[in-house]
Amino acid sequence: MSSVERAYRDPVHDFITLTDPMLIALIDTPEFQRLRRIRQLGASHGTYHGAEHSRFGHSLGVLWVMHKVIRRLKNQGIGIDPWSEQVAYVAALLHDIGHGPFSHALEETLTPGRNHEDWGRRIILGDTEVHRILQERDPELPGAVASVLDGTWSGPRLVRSLVSSQLDVDRMDYLLRDSLYTGVTYGVFDLERLINTLWVVDQEIVLLRKGIVAAEEYILARYFMYWQVYFHKTTRGQELLLRQVWRRAVHLAEERRLGEEWISRHLYRLLRGEADLTTYLRVDDHDVMAAVKAWTEHPDPILSDLSRRYVDRALLKSVFRVAHEEIDLSLLDEAAAVVRSAGWDPEYYLLVDRTKDVAYDYYTSPNGEEGRRKPILALDEFGRPQEIATLSHTIAAVATRRRVAVNIYVPADCVGAVRRLFAG
Amino acid sequence: MSSVERAYRDPVHDFITLTDPMLIALIDTPEFQRLRRIRQLGASHGTYHGAEHSRFGHSLGVLWVMHKVIRRLKNQGIGIDPWSEQVAYVAALLHDIGHGPFSHALEETLTPGRNHEDWGRRIILGDTEVHRILQERDPELPGAVASVLDGTWSGPRLVRSLVSSQLDVDRMDYLLRDSLYTGVTYGVFDLERLINTLWVVDQEIVLLRKGIVAAEEYILARYFMYWQVYFHKTTRGQELLLRQVWRRAVHLAEERRLGEEWISRHLYRLLRGEADLTTYLRVDDHDVMAAVKAWTEHPDPILSDLSRRYVDRALLKSVFRVAHEEIDLSLLDEAAAVVRSAGWDPEYYLLVDRTKDVAYDYYTSPNGEEGRRKPILALDEFGRPQEIATLSHTIAAVATRRRVAVNIYVPADCVGAVRRLFAG
Amino acid sequence: MSSVERAYRDPVHDFITLTDPMLIALIDTPEFQRLRRIRQLGASHGTYHGAEHSRFGHSLGVLWVMHKVIRRLKNQGIGIDPWSEQVAYVAALLHDIGHGPFSHALEETLTPGRNHEDWGRRIILGDTEVHRILQERDPELPGAVASVLDGTWSGPRLVRSLVSSQLDVDRMDYLLRDSLYTGVTYGVFDLERLINTLWVVDQEIVLLRKGIVAAEEYILARYFMYWQVYFHKTTRGQELLLRQVWRRAVHLAEERRLGEEWISRHLYRLLRGEADLTTYLRVDDHDVMAAVKAWTEHPDPILSDLSRRYVDRALLKSVFRVAHEEIDLSLLDEAAAVVRSAGWDPEYYLLVDRTKDVAYDYYTSPNGEEGRRKPILALDEFGRPQEIATLSHTIAAVATRRRVAVNIYVPADCVGAVRRLFAG
Amino acid sequence: MSSVERAYRDPVHDFITLTDPMLIALIDTPEFQRLRRIRQLGASHGTYHGAEHSRFGHSLGVLWVMHKVIRRLKNQGIGIDPWSEQVAYVAALLHDIGHGPFSHALEETLTPGRNHEDWGRRIILGDTEVHRILQERDPELPGAVASVLDGTWSGPRLVRSLVSSQLDVDRMDYLLRDSLYTGVTYGVFDLERLINTLWVVDQEIVLLRKGIVAAEEYILARYFMYWQVYFHKTTRGQELLLRQVWRRAVHLAEERRLGEEWISRHLYRLLRGEADLTTYLRVDDHDVMAAVKAWTEHPDPILSDLSRRYVDRALLKSVFRVAHEEIDLSLLDEAAAVVRSAGWDPEYYLLVDRTKDVAYDYYTSPNGEEGRRKPILALDEFGRPQEIATLSHTIAAVATRRRVAVNIYVPADCVGAVRRLFAG
Repeated sequence: MSSVERAYRDPVHDFITLTDPMLIALIDTPEFQRLRRIRQLGASHGTYHGAEHSRFGHSLGVLWVMHKVIRRLKNQGIGIDPWSEQVAYVAALLHDIGHGPFSHALEETLTPGRNHEDWGRRIILGDTEVHRILQERDPELPGAVASVLDGTWSGPRLVRSLVSSQLDVDRMDYLLRDSLYTGVTYGVFDLERLINTLWVVDQEIVLLRKGIVAAEEYILARYFMYWQVYFHKTTRGQELLLRQVWRRAVHLAEERRLGEEWISRHLYRLLRGEADLTTYLRVDDHDVMAAVKAWTEHPDPILSDLSRRYVDRALLKSVFRVAHEEIDLSLLDEAAAVVRSAGWDPEYYLLVDRTKDVAYDYYTSPNGEEGRRKPILALDEFGRPQEIATLSHTIAAVATRRRVAVNIYVPADCVGAVRRLFAG
Repeated sequence: MSSVERAYRDPVHDFITLTDPMLIALIDTPEFQRLRRIRQLGASHGTYHGAEHSRFGHSLGVLWVMHKVIRRLKNQGIGIDPWSEQVAYVAALLHDIGHGPFSHALEETLTPGRNHEDWGRRIILGDTEVHRILQERDPELPGAVASVLDGTWSGPRLVRSLVSSQLDVDRMDYLLRDSLYTGVTYGVFDLERLINTLWVVDQEIVLLRKGIVAAEEYILARYFMYWQVYFHKTTRGQELLLRQVWRRAVHLAEERRLGEEWISRHLYRLLRGEADLTTYLRVDDHDVMAAVKAWTEHPDPILSDLSRRYVDRALLKSVFRVAHEEIDLSLLDEAAAVVRSAGWDPEYYLLVDRTKDVAYDYYTSPNGEEGRRKPILALDEFGRPQEIATLSHTIAAVATRRRVAVNIYVPADCVGAVRRLFAG
Repeated sequence: MSSVERAYRDPVHDFITLTDPMLIALIDTPEFQRLRRIRQLGASHGTYHGAEHSRFGHSLGVLWVMHKVIRRLKNQGIGIDPWSEQVAYVAALLHDIGHGPFSHALEETLTPGRNHEDWGRRIILGDTEVHRILQERDPELPGAVASVLDGTWSGPRLVRSLVSSQLDVDRMDYLLRDSLYTGVTYGVFDLERLINTLWVVDQEIVLLRKGIVAAEEYILARYFMYWQVYFHKTTRGQELLLRQVWRRAVHLAEERRLGEEWISRHLYRLLRGEADLTTYLRVDDHDVMAAVKAWTEHPDPILSDLSRRYVDRALLKSVFRVAHEEIDLSLLDEAAAVVRSAGWDPEYYLLVDRTKDVAYDYYTSPNGEEGRRKPILALDEFGRPQEIATLSHTIAAVATRRRVAVNIYVPADCVGAVRRLFAG
Repeated sequence: MSSVERAYRDPVHDFITLTDPMLIALIDTPEFQRLRRIRQLGASHGTYHGAEHSRFGHSLGVLWVMHKVIRRLKNQGIGIDPWSEQVAYVAALLHDIGHGPFSHALEETLTPGRNHEDWGRRIILGDTEVHRILQERDPELPGAVASVLDGTWSGPRLVRSLVSSQLDVDRMDYLLRDSLYTGVTYGVFDLERLINTLWVVDQEIVLLRKGIVAAEEYILARYFMYWQVYFHKTTRGQELLLRQVWRRAVHLAEERRLGEEWISRHLYRLLRGEADLTTYLRVDDHDVMAAVKAWTEHPDPILSDLSRRYVDRALLKSVFRVAHEEIDLSLLDEAAAVVRSAGWDPEYYLLVDRTKDVAYDYYTSPNGEEGRRKPILALDEFGRPQEIATLSHTIAAVATRRRVAVNIYVPADCVGAVRRLFAG
C-alpha cells in the first residue's frame, strides 16, 4: 500500500484521495485544521439547521474538483506544465485559508479593512507552517500561490481562471455542498457534464457549444442559491444582529466598559483593533460564540440584550415578508422614532439590509454594473469564443438585470407600526 | 390491517400507498396495465440508456403528486368538494391512458388524426373495464373525468388546473422521473417547496409570492430537460427514422407489397388505417418492435434497410453538431441531390427536424406565440395574482424568446457533403 | 477533442467514458445492441414497477466497475499485464452477451440444455460482429475472453476472479443498479470503500482487514436483495406462469395445434427446438411478449387463459403470505384435486416454487452446501488470507444456514381451500 | 395560511412541518436552541469531516419520525389516545434535551455521576422555559414526559417503546442522519418499509412477518455504523484525548494551578464539580473548545501539550491498525515504561480504549450479556410475537456474539516499540 495515500470521506464527492505528501502536510497544519472551526455559511444554520458545515470540507472539495478538471483537460490533450499544475492544486486547497470567524458574516467586521484574501496572503507568505511546507517544496511556491489568489499571477491564465473566476472550482464545490447540507435542490447542477464541456482557447477556459445548457443550469443554480439560501431574510437579519453585538462590544471596550475577562485573550485583541497574524490565527467561531454567550450576562443592557437575542434566537423581525427592491429612505427617521418610543435604541435596533451592499454575482456580463469581472466564454457555432450571455437568453436575463433587495429589521413589538409606515 | 391498502414502491416518490378500492381497481384493468408496455420517452433510451421506463410508473406518480397537492391545500383550509376531489384523482391517474406505442414519438403517426387525448376519451367513455369501474362508482363519473381531460369540465377550475396546465401534477412528476432514469440533474426541482407555496384565489391555482423562486427553478427545469433530453438530436433523429419505417410500411401495404404475415394482426389493422378501440388497446411497443425486427428481412430494400438501422442503431447522422435556429431551406434540394447520388432515396434518407413542429412549452406567457395556454399566476406584493413572467425576469427570458432548432439527418456517407453545403 | 471518446450517462455511475475504439465498436454491434431489448430482471417490473431496465446498462456498468478496480490496483502498485487487462475489460463488457429473452426467468426454458453462458461463448467464438472485432484486434482475443467466461482461463487468476467470483464486478454493479430502479435501499453498499480495500496476494483478490465491514455490508446487500426483490413471491409466481405459457405452446406446437402465424419466425424455431446462433440472436423480449399477446386469442383455452393472465397481470395467487421453509409434499396430490375440481388443469394451474432449485449465493463458505464456489478471502491480523466467514460472525451467519423457501400458486378461487389443506 | 405552521428544511426528511403551537414553542426555548451548539457525534468530525451536525436537527428528526409512525398506526386502525399521543411527541422532541458538550464523548466526564438522562429530567421538571410551556398545556405533562424518558411511564407501553427501545424513533433518525453527514452508506435502511411493517399487539410494537428482512437491514445498519463510524479508532482516540485534557484541568484546578481566567465562568463551575441546572444549561461545545484552545498556552506542559494536540489534531496514535479483541493486560506496565522513557507521563499518554466499556447495542437478545434490554418482537407464521433473533439467523448472529475491541494509543514516537511489545 502506498504509504502516503490519504482518503477523506466526503458527503459531496465520496472519496477524496490524495497522494502528494505536500498537500497532505498542508492539510495537517494548524492553520488549515483551523478551518474545521469556521462555519462555511456564517449564521445560515439558524435558518437551514443542516448547514453546520465548516470551511474544511469545502476546501478539500475545491481541491478535488480541481483534480477532476485538470484530469479532464489532460485527457483532452490540453497541456498544463507541472509547475502550474502544482500551483493550481495548492491555490485551490488554500483559497479560503484566510477566512475568519463566521466567514463572510463577520468579514471586515472583526478586522476592519482586511478581508479574508488579505489574511490568506499573509498566511501563505508569513511565518506559518503553511509557508514552511510550501517553501520546502520550492522557494518560489509561496509567492506563486499568493499571486494566483490575488490575481497577479503571470503564469498561464488558465490557472487563475480555474481558481477564481465566474466558472471556478470554488463555486462548483460550494453550490453542491451548500445544497446538500441545507437540504435544498437549488444549487444542484451537473458537475460532471460541465467539466466534460470545458475547453481551452488561448489559455482561457471556454465552454464547448454543447455545454451552454450545462452552464445555464450552473448559473441558475447560483441564482437560486442566492435568493433561497444566501440572502434568506432570516439569515441576513441574524448576521446583521451579530454585527451589532460586535459593534456594541467595540464601543464598550473603547469606553473601557468591557474588559478581557469577558472574552478570549486573542479575540480581545481583535476587539481592540490589535490584530496581528498570530492573534488572527488563534481566533475562530468558538471564541466569538463564547464571547457572545458571556456577554448575555454583561451589565450593559444593550450588549446583554443583543447577545441574548443572538444566542437564544430571539431575533429582530423583518418588516417585509419578501424583501423590497426599493424603499423610501426618508421614512427611516420615522421608523427610528417608532423604535425609540418603544424603548429601543434605533442605532442597534433598526437594521437595514441591502443586498446591493454585498458582492453577489451569480453571473455578470461585461456590460453589467459589475462589469470588471471576467466573463464566461463559450464557443459559438463557428468555434469562436463569445461572452456566454450573447449565446443564451437565459443567462442574459439573470446577468443584465441586477436584482436588489432591501429589508428592515426591528424588535417584534415594532414590526406592525413600521410596516404600516412603509405601506404608506 | 386495512384489506384494501395497496403500496407501490416508486423510485421517485418512495411508497405510493392507495386505499380507495376504485383507484386500485382502475390500476388493475387491462387498459391501465397496458401502460407497462409503453415507454414514457419513446426512443430516448437510445441516447440515455437508463430511460427505459414506461407510462405505468409515471401515471402512478401523477396520482401521488395530486394526493400531495390536495392534502396541502386542505391543510391550508382550502376546501375542495368530495366529488371534485374524486374526479381529480381519477383524471390524474388516467391522464395518459390513451397513449399508444412509443408515446409522443409515434403519436398521430400510427393513427393519423387521433392523438392520445382522443383515445383517452374513448377509453374512458367506451366499452372498457375502466369505464365499467368508473360507472359503477357513479354514472356521472366517466363523463366528468373525460371533461377534465378535454378541457370542458364545468366544475371548479382548480381541478382542471391541477390536471393540465403549465403548473400541473403531470409535469411535476415527469421532470423528476425522467431526470432519475436518464441520470441527469436537469429536471430536478424542489417539489415539496413548490407544493408548499401553492394557494388558491378564485378557484385558480396561484403561487404565494415566496414561491416565485421555486417556480423559476421548476420552469427552468423544464427548459433544461427539453434541450438536454427531450430534444436531444440523436433521439430526434432516431424517432424520425422510426416514422420513416412506418411510412414506408404503409406505402408498401397500400401497394399490397406488405401483408399480415410480417406483423401482429392488430398492428396490421393500424397500418391499414382500420383502428378501432379494441384494436388500439391491443397494440403497444412490443408489436411495433416485433414488426420492425421482422421487416429487417423484408424484400423491399428501403424498408429492410431502415428497419435494420433502427434495430441495430446504425442511425442516420445529424449534419449539425448543435441544432441551427434557421437553415436555408432552398438548399434542401441540393442536399437531396447529394443523398440521391450516393444511392439513397431522399424521401426516406434526408430528414429534417424542426422543434417548431412540436408542442413544447417549458413556459409560455400570454403574449408569447402560444398565447392560448393559461399562464401561471403568482401573488404580487399586494396579494394580487399576476402572470408570473411579470414578476420574474428569469421566467420572462425563457418565456418570450421562443428557441427553435432545425437539424438535418442523412446517411453517414453524405454528412460531409451536406455539411459543406450549409456551411456555404 | 479526442475523436474516439464515447460518454454514456448512467443513472448509477454518472458518466461512463470510454476511449478504447475496440470497446466502443463492440458496444455498437447488433449483438450487443440487442441487450437493450432484454430486461435485466425478467418479470420483476411486475412487482417493482421501476425495474424496467435492460442488460445494456448493466453491461456498461460492469465494464465501468472493472475500470475502477483496475485503476485502484494499479495505483496501489499491483501490476496487471496489458494483455490481461484488455481481456478483463472485454470479458466484463461481454459477460452477459449470451442472455436471451427475460434473462434468468426463461433461461434454459427457451433453449433447453443451453444457458446464457453457452450462448455467450458461441457469440464470442462464432460468426458474429463481436467475434470479428475481437479477432481484428488479436486473433487470440476471442478465445481468451471465452476462456475467462467459462472458467478455463490460464492467465492470471486475478482476471477470472474479477469477472466471476463471489466478489466480482458483475455483482457490484447489479446490486446498486437493481436497487436504484426498484426504489429500494437493500442493495446499497459502499462501492468506493469496497474497491479501496481490495488487495492482491498470489494473484488472488483479497480484502484488507479494514475492509471486512465493507464486505459484510456487500454480502448482506446481496442477502437483502435476494429476499426482498429477486425472490419476491409475486415475481416468482409471475415467472412461473410465463414458463407455463411457453410449456403449453411447445405442447401445442408438438401436436401441430400452434403454427408460425401466431409468432415471430425466429421464436417459432426456438419453440420447435431448432435454435441456431442466428436464430437465437434475433429473439428478444419483444418476440416473447408479442407471442404471448397473440396467444391470448388462441383457440386453446389453456394457452389463451394463461397468456391473458400474464398480459393483464391476473396472476395465480400464492397460497402462503410468506414462503415456507418446508411443506408437506404429500399434500400436493390433494391440492391438485382441489384445483382440478375447480375446473383447472393442475399441470398448469398448480405451481410449486422452490428457491432451492435456483442458483443463489449471496455468499457460500467452502463448507456450505454449495462448497465448490471459490470463497472470498480477507487478510487476518497477521496478514494471511483467510476465508472471510472465519473472520466475520455476520457473514458466517448468512453463509452457513441455507435459507430455503417454498411457495405454491393456484387460481384465486382455490387459494382458500389449498391454504386450509396445508394449515392442516 | 395557518398562522402557526412552522416548516424546517431537513437534509434527511425534507420538510418537517409542525402545527402544534406547543411543540413550536418548545423548539424556541433557550434550552432547546442550545442543542444547536452541541455536536451530535462528539469528535467524529475529526475523522469524517462532514459530521459537524448538532443535536438540534436530530431532535427535530426524531419528532418527525414519531409523526410518521403514529400516522401509520392510526391509518391501520390502531388507536392511541390523544394524551398519550401528545406525550409521545414531546418525549420524542425532548429525548436529548439533557445532552451536554460533545454529547456522549464527554458525558459523565464533565458532570460525574450525572448522565444526559438525569439532566434531561431536571430540565423538564425544573425551573425552565421548557417546563413552563409544558405545564401551561397541562400540569401533568412535565411529569408524564419525564416518566416516559426515565422508563417509569405507566400509560400505554407503546409510547415508551416508540421513544426508547431497540426499535425506536431515535435510532431510526440517527442512522440515516449520521450516514448522510459522514457520507457513508452503512446506516442507510428502508425507513418507510420498516414503518409500514409496524404493528401493535398487547400495546407492544411488533413487526409483521413480512417486515423481518427490513428489520434485519435496520439492525445490520446499526452494526455497520458502530464499527465504521461510532467506534472508528481515530475518533475514539480523539475522544479519549479530550477526556485527558479535562482530567488534567480538573487536577490542576484542584491544586489551584488553573483558575477562572482560562475558561468561561460556567464551565469553571463544572470543572470545580459545582454543576447546578442553570450552570449546566449555559455550557456547550463552544465553552469547551474555547477552554481547550486557551489551555494550549497554559504553563502546565501536560495540559498545554494535550490541548495543542487536540486543537491541531496532532493526536496520539493507535498501536493497532485494527482493534484487537483481547490484549494481554500484563504488558501494559511494560508499555507504560516505554512511554515514560520517551519522556511522556503514561497516566496521560498511554490510553486504553475498550468498547466493552460503552453501551453499544445494535441489537441484544434477551439471552445476550445485556439481556435486560427489551427485545424486538416480530410475528411468527402463526401470528404470535416472538423475539426476532429466533426468526432470523442474521440477527441472531450479530446479537449473540458480542464483538469487543481494545486499542491502545500512545505518542507517535512510541508506537513502534509498543507495537513490538504486543506482537510478542
